Amino acid sequence: MLKLIIGNKAYSSWSLRGWLACKLSGLPFEEVVVPLYDESWDKRREGDEFAPSSGKVPILWDGDAVVWDSLAIVEYLNEKSGGDKFWPADPAARAMARSMAAEMHSGFAPLRRKHGMNIRQVYPPKQPDEDVLQDIGRIMEIWAQARARYGGDGEFLFGPFGAVDAMFAPVVTRFVTYSLPVARFAPAYMNAVLQHPFMQDWIAAAQAEDWVIEKFEQPAD
Amino acid sequence: MLKLIIGNKAYSSWSLRGWLACKLSGLPFEEVVVPLYDESWDKRREGDEFAPSSGKVPILWDGDAVVWDSLAIVEYLNEKSGGDKFWPADPAARAMARSMAAEMHSGFAPLRRKHGMNIRQVYPPKQPDEDVLQDIGRIMEIWAQARARYGGDGEFLFGPFGAVDAMFAPVVTRFVTYSLPVARFAPAYMNAVLQHPFMQDWIAAAQAEDWVIEKFEQPAD
Repeated sequence: MLKLIIGNKAYSSWSLRGWLACKLSGLPFEEVVVPLYDESWDKRREGDEFAPSSGKVPILWDGDAVVWDSLAIVEYLNEKSGGDKFWPADPAARAMARSMAAEMHSGFAPLRRKHGMNIRQVYPPKQPDEDVLQDIGRIMEIWAQARARYGGDGEFLFGPFGAVDAMFAPVVTRFVTYSLPVARFAPAYMNAVLQHPFMQDWIAAAQAEDWVIEKFEQPAD
Repeated sequence: MLKLIIGNKAYSSWSLRGWLACKLSGLPFEEVVVPLYDESWDKRREGDEFAPSSGKVPILWDGDAVVWDSLAIVEYLNEKSGGDKFWPADPAARAMARSMAAEMHSGFAPLRRKHGMNIRQVYPPKQPDEDVLQDIGRIMEIWAQARARYGGDGEFLFGPFGAVDAMFAPVVTRFVTYSLPVARFAPAYMNAVLQHPFMQDWIAAAQAEDWVIEKFEQPAD
């Protein structure tokens, strides 16, 4: 069976992406939660199952195959599960979806660095930094284009919940946690993500975790 | 026909990755070089063909499909060209290859930021910063593992030249340009990359470019 190693559900945004990819695949998988920065963290990270990634999560094990990056997990599981669960079928939509997922994978560093994921908190609004505002503006632009061109009757970026929604799900939670300013169309989409059964499962598990890590409990300066 | 928009061949490392992916696909493509930061750059960036990426290169156009990220270009062309030219066929090797390509895509920021690609220069050795040394160490580790497990009789990371070699090709040129310290096994692999006909084409074109952009002509501090 597939085994997915992840960090705390409250804080580990890349873990959320890998976990959503596993859910999307429809394949059974075992999950192993290793709390980030907990006492056991350094010890666990030295173990063989962490070795391929040099200690980062998520890590997907499938027999002797190991995938240690969330976007690679998406593509691995896309192939393993038949090629039709992650990306839209239309070639132009599929090209756009892959581009958006890749842009999320390597981009938006200011937003990610200054507004760490914390599923359990909502902070009052505060003026975001200029570079964060630029990230938000770009995200609004590509969300709006995907919805307008390919959203159709669905609630998600390309209609049904897919890989791009999984990649942006931690951003949705950050927008809520830090009360960040979003475009008028965005809350309906964000709400659809938060209400999706996969996200409801994840959020409930995050709420139930009793690890509290101080460095993740500070709102942005 | 496919159309690939790229920056200067001397400086634009992400363009090199996208261009190598086009070459790997075996499909015919037209290339359009738009010199970074040249007078024409801002004007070109405002045009429709740059719009999807918000002005970044590379951008691949395929009819009405557009792909604006190098890793997305790899996956798009992998599907378009039959699925067997980019990644190794063995599932465990394929999982590792995708993980390495994704790690290159989102990681190694210190190396990338402090040692910008400049195909036309070789600078004397200088002690790299600690974070750059860590990046180099990690790259040596994953190159060595790929070569040992899956290199076989081939000269490249997974035997024949593939997507992972394309993703790391700009790193190979940086190791040369900045005379960075690499492991003893690495020069043979680096030389194979630099001697590959695709790279020889790219390097010759970079040498022939007459744009000189001052900010790219400084060795790292």
